[in-house]
Amino acid sequence: MGLMDLTLDAITPVDGSRAAAIQRRLDNKTKPPGSLGRLEELAKRVCLITGKDDPDVSKKAVFVFAGDHGVADEGVSAYPKAVTAQMVYNFLRGGAGVNVLARHVGADVIVADIGVDHDFEPMEGLRIVKVAKGTSNMAVKPAMTREETVRAIEVGIGLVNEFVANGYGMVATGDMGIANTTPSTALAAVFTGLPVETVTGYGTGITDDTFKNKVSVIERAISVNRPDKADALDVLSKVGGLEIAGIAGVVLGAAANKIPVVVDGFISSAGALAACELKPECRGYIIAAHRSVEAGHIAVLNMIGQRPLLDLDMRLGEGTGAALAMGLVEAGIKILGEMATFEQAGVDGGKIN
Amino acid sequence: MGLMDLTLDAITPVDGSRAAAIQRRLDNKTKPPGSLGRLEELAKRVCLITGKDDPDVSKKAVFVFAGDHGVADEGVSAYPKAVTAQMVYNFLRGGAGVNVLARHVGADVIVADIGVDHDFEPMEGLRIVKVAKGTSNMAVKPAMTREETVRAIEVGIGLVNEFVANGYGMVATGDMGIANTTPSTALAAVFTGLPVETVTGYGTGITDDTFKNKVSVIERAISVNRPDKADALDVLSKVGGLEIAGIAGVVLGAAANKIPVVVDGFISSAGALAACELKPECRGYIIAAHRSVEAGHIAVLNMIGQRPLLDLDMRLGEGTGAALAMGLVEAGIKILGEMATFEQAGVDGGKIN
Repeated sequence: MGLMDLTLDAITPVDGSRAAAIQRRLDNKTKPPGSLGRLEELAKRVCLITGKDDPDVSKKAVFVFAGDHGVADEGVSAYPKAVTAQMVYNFLRGGAGVNVLARHVGADVIVADIGVDHDFEPMEGLRIVKVAKGTSNMAVKPAMTREETVRAIEVGIGLVNEFVANGYGMVATGDMGIANTTPSTALAAVFTGLPVETVTGYGTGITDDTFKNKVSVIERAISVNRPDKADALDVLSKVGGLEIAGIAGVVLGAAANKIPVVVDGFISSAGALAACELKPECRGYIIAAHRSVEAGHIAVLNMIGQRPLLDLDMRLGEGTGAALAMGLVEAGIKILGEMATFEQAGVDGGKIN
Repeated sequence: MGLMDLTLDAITPVDGSRAAAIQRRLDNKTKPPGSLGRLEELAKRVCLITGKDDPDVSKKAVFVFAGDHGVADEGVSAYPKAVTAQMVYNFLRGGAGVNVLARHVGADVIVADIGVDHDFEPMEGLRIVKVAKGTSNMAVKPAMTREETVRAIEVGIGLVNEFVANGYGMVATGDMGIANTTPSTALAAVFTGLPVETVTGYGTGITDDTFKNKVSVIERAISVNRPDKADALDVLSKVGGLEIAGIAGVVLGAAANKIPVVVDGFISSAGALAACELKPECRGYIIAAHRSVEAGHIAVLNMIGQRPLLDLDMRLGEGTGAALAMGLVEAGIKILGEMATFEQAGVDGGKIN
């Protein structure tokens, strides 16, 4: 059995049986019960996910998967394909949005070339785990073979396994790939069953004409490839992308290792949804970072079954929203670990009204 | 002229004339224009507020004002009045929610006894700036005299002046005072003109019976005192509170010193609204931290004219939401200061579609 199948087998549902006990601990902290809202929810969820009473999420990483897309040839993006590789160099020098925000929350950024159409020299901070030099143009043929898709998923799983072995307690997903809202939208349309036009957005900021073209390219990709909705690997390989499959692998790896995975915006959520379609038990390990401006995002999050933490009108990807959200998850854990109880503080905890 | 009047005179509107130039700088960073949404808005606002191109908000403080309320005698809160002083000790030992979250974002917590009905010994970290040992019961008579109100406002102004002189670049407001959603709701009702019942919430978690009592106590306080809506000091003194006036002072002080002030939830927003009623130009200096669960909060924020950053179902007060939001403001400033430009990174910035 390969790594992907082993991992799928290892994933069990989050065990909710300690939920009431953890909430009692939170309710004994010096605050009105429930008054820290979603921070309490995060603390509780991470305790349940990890099976620990005092989970340590201080070592944390954002995996930024970079891949190119054959469908960029159809003129669906505002930016030229060369930007994918250029941005990888920017990530490695620490100058991109995700670098700034990950530093801000004390997370490491791991850049993985899973499918860039460019030959990188070995560089500090870069994982060269290339499955292919970009996908095929899905408007014409399947974006990837089934075998490439499995390899890309296993890259994601392998990274999580490695980082968990090195003491990391929380991971997040990020993406870079010019044109990658196009396959993400195709995945959203197939998995949700919604019309392509409903789930298509403006990506990095395309014109109305390019938007119309994008919708028709996605419709063509779906009609040419006829992905089988009941077979998530078929969908992911035909209308997905290498970085999206890598992200799906991170979600599967996190679930198998029982650590929280903070999922960024639209592209990451499409990858996470693919993981959930492969193994629905993944849902409980996912923390949805933010609500992206991208049109199809909320439909995808609804299928994943997670409510986003932040709503800051962001649409950059890279893992930028996930980095910010990891800061909130850590805050929730600190509430549980660092706040005094009523007894410790000598504060009257009994209500009078 | 006293400190309050000097401060009111020193406040000028935020100068928006550099907005387009700052947005151009943001648009030259390696990301699609506008794709970091509200982080960009925060960066731009802080540049305009401070008049600086690279504002430094790394030294930051949450002022937690503690005060008691005579109206607690009316049975409007879920907790006994003694909790106010007990929580001050908890703040000083670092065990409260605001301590945990302020540490998380690297902010200092300054606890100010502006009106607690308890005699504190001098302690590290405590500012004893008591104006009175709690307010009078506003259901019977004015909560404070006009002179006490001005003194409490000046306490807030004085703290900001001192911290700005010591290099602090951002301040936030917090509160502690059993029963203080009651005067805050009264202020909200008077300033917004909305019915008391509409803006009343469940505070720390009262029962339905206590809720009904709270509404009638607030209605009584307004009818007994007849605050003059056109005279913000009259309203604040009659149906406000000492810590709320201190918070209003922080907002005025921040505006006069041209630094951003991050306003926490319902109680803080009531104080901030009083400041805006005294000097409408304050509005531009206020960053609304989060949307509280408390019913009247959004109406108050609408009058202040600021959209909250976070919506995490929080209702603790103390400055907990403001601490989290300060982390986002700092993230926005780092985007402007630390992200590479297209030119620096060698990334194609020109759109093709």
